[in-house]
Amino acid sequence: MIQIAVLGYGTVGSGVVEVINTNHELINKKIGEEIQVKYVLDLRDFPEDPIQEKIVHDFQVILQDPEVKIVVEVMGGTEPAYTFVKQALEQGKSVCTSNKELVAKHGVELLEIARQKNINFLFEASCGGGIPIIRPLNTSLTADEIEEITGILNGTTNYILSKMAADGSDLEVVLKEAQEKGYAERNPSADVDGWDACRKIAILSSIAFGHHVDYQDIYTEGIMKITSTDIRYAKAWGANIKLLASCRKVENQYYAMVTPVMINSNSPLYSVNEVYNGILVHGNVLGDTMFYGSGAGKLPTASAVVSDVIDAAKHQDTNVMSGWSSQKLELGKISDLENRFFVRMSGSFTENLSRVEEVFGQVDAKVLAEVNGEFGFITEKMKEAEYLEKAAEFNNILGMIRVRF
Amino acid sequence: MIQIAVLGYGTVGSGVVEVINTNHELINKKIGEEIQVKYVLDLRDFPEDPIQEKIVHDFQVILQDPEVKIVVEVMGGTEPAYTFVKQALEQGKSVCTSNKELVAKHGVELLEIARQKNINFLFEASCGGGIPIIRPLNTSLTADEIEEITGILNGTTNYILSKMAADGSDLEVVLKEAQEKGYAERNPSADVDGWDACRKIAILSSIAFGHHVDYQDIYTEGIMKITSTDIRYAKAWGANIKLLASCRKVENQYYAMVTPVMINSNSPLYSVNEVYNGILVHGNVLGDTMFYGSGAGKLPTASAVVSDVIDAAKHQDTNVMSGWSSQKLELGKISDLENRFFVRMSGSFTENLSRVEEVFGQVDAKVLAEVNGEFGFITEKMKEAEYLEKAAEFNNILGMIRVRF
Repeated sequence: MIQIAVLGYGTVGSGVVEVINTNHELINKKIGEEIQVKYVLDLRDFPEDPIQEKIVHDFQVILQDPEVKIVVEVMGGTEPAYTFVKQALEQGKSVCTSNKELVAKHGVELLEIARQKNINFLFEASCGGGIPIIRPLNTSLTADEIEEITGILNGTTNYILSKMAADGSDLEVVLKEAQEKGYAERNPSADVDGWDACRKIAILSSIAFGHHVDYQDIYTEGIMKITSTDIRYAKAWGANIKLLASCRKVENQYYAMVTPVMINSNSPLYSVNEVYNGILVHGNVLGDTMFYGSGAGKLPTASAVVSDVIDAAKHQDTNVMSGWSSQKLELGKISDLENRFFVRMSGSFTENLSRVEEVFGQVDAKVLAEVNGEFGFITEKMKEAEYLEKAAEFNNILGMIRVRF
Repeated sequence: MIQIAVLGYGTVGSGVVEVINTNHELINKKIGEEIQVKYVLDLRDFPEDPIQEKIVHDFQVILQDPEVKIVVEVMGGTEPAYTFVKQALEQGKSVCTSNKELVAKHGVELLEIARQKNINFLFEASCGGGIPIIRPLNTSLTADEIEEITGILNGTTNYILSKMAADGSDLEVVLKEAQEKGYAERNPSADVDGWDACRKIAILSSIAFGHHVDYQDIYTEGIMKITSTDIRYAKAWGANIKLLASCRKVENQYYAMVTPVMINSNSPLYSVNEVYNGILVHGNVLGDTMFYGSGAGKLPTASAVVSDVIDAAKHQDTNVMSGWSSQKLELGKISDLENRFFVRMSGSFTENLSRVEEVFGQVDAKVLAEVNGEFGFITEKMKEAEYLEKAAEFNNILGMIRVRF
């Protein structure tokens, strides 16, 4: 019998209990012994729910119970999650978490404690919800030097951008609708300003590149500036606008960023729509591989957490995660990174084109019949610093979106 | 120092040596000690290649060398691969293979020998080339009851169908071009008749469902009957025709088949084009997840083989693959499986429609301006036996393709 404790009976926590109940026999078979939820920690009581008999309000009950071998942390936030998780690991209990803030901020330290204690700190559900990505990076994509990892890692923003593309609606309208449907929080900043994706790409690139990527070092832009007109232009180029979280190696320098990017159907991420997530990994011998699925949601996320619980149960005295070095990965400046740039400019196309070509060189320009008083163009590849310098020569630029095609 | 031997210096074998050379330091770091290719078994000599000093022509040299801990089998075919692999495992050497015929036919037995010897028989590269799928099924998707696994598992046929859809060309033309480009064999039967995909889905569903799926039990149709007219109809429905290899559970019965299927953009497999492969897994709590990448090719396949070598090197005294029971999974009859059916019928739409609706019930019919003397329709969902019975009432059916949307 493996006894576990679940910290937090919110969406994911109740999902974990549900998955363990639904697939109890199958999970027991995979582990080789029976699994049982002994405690659920929550400040609240759930008098109508059979879980009530397992509810405890004091973490010490769990910490001091030697029967509890695995602690599932699904509270979110860094405190008290960090204190509880650290104490559990130091007590020799493996921890499985879905908490991206915790892993992005304290992952190095917690992985190291787990390594010293020969137990496990696992966090498959922290990135990409139900999509298997952490374990494949750790155990499958091992023969390659990873050169790039780029993902659509936030379901809320992907839903908003997909909906804007499908309906031609404005962002504010779609965001409001997403909030009503429960796809977006009442305070949507963590999603729409890119912070959620930023923490996730910090975790994924730390694993992929073996050094600590500090999420605070990652250049992050959200989607709030994207308009229905931007999306019209994207369509005219056969492209979509996606919030991409990316870390790539270019000439021995790593660059990380979270920004809206125009991609076309040459990228497998182009077809990742609605609330789905997709994570593209490029290896030096493997080439491109992509992992696709539900990036959030109660049961998919719980499925990933429980797969970690099974892994922890099967490896009670073996540390299985390679983790990453505490030595920080020094990221290059975004200004040195080369991209193409989509630019919207007010004024007449014919009057501005020669000046545009004088400054930017050859561009691919389009005028849309349904958009008045402006035109759009995509530059050739150049460093972002060079783009900014050139852009400063104009006072009629309405907006810029990076382009990868 | 971990010494390995590579059986076969063909495309994949030379790729394995190249990957180990290219990423030598990184691989050594992952394993924790240095890896070295001690022998390469091949009937040929390679006097111009530095590999020549490692070439042996007699498998006994490898078998009897106690320094060789891991054998990489990339010869293909069942003999002598089966004899060599079995002997190596019995001698206590782990084996990593890319050989789908071997795994589909002898996987159960070879996995069992590895289990008894506490070593490993690994075959990530046997399905989906470089795409991580075997290990994720074994170690990541563990919290779910897998209800379906459906893949585009053959790059050659996917290239042909993608090219037909892009250019409107006939199959014979595209096949010839694919043969010239080296994407298709001179004798293309294993690919175009579905046998390659059949073996791969047998392996994947054996792992996913835990019981031996005999590839000889799987209903298999190839793509040779697909015409450019079929593809025109598919496009009119916003669909693509893909060769899907599938095993799914419907009401406690498993059904496996390899057939061309019309899918639309609601399926993530819709955008898997050219030589790429995609594998969709549906779990009862996870929902859909898809793995995408290069399903063939020297380096991607070699990358997967080497990831197995790293796994085997890290687990020299631990058997890591769950494998599957030798008890055969009894597959349901395809005639009991429900699908929608796309039917092409010769004659006039107006003259035939009432008879079609009388027999098939409500259908979704289309007449294409550019196709004369026929029309197409898609039936509602029905069992295949029911479809066949109804179809027998007509003598003017030109073709049928299963539909999943």
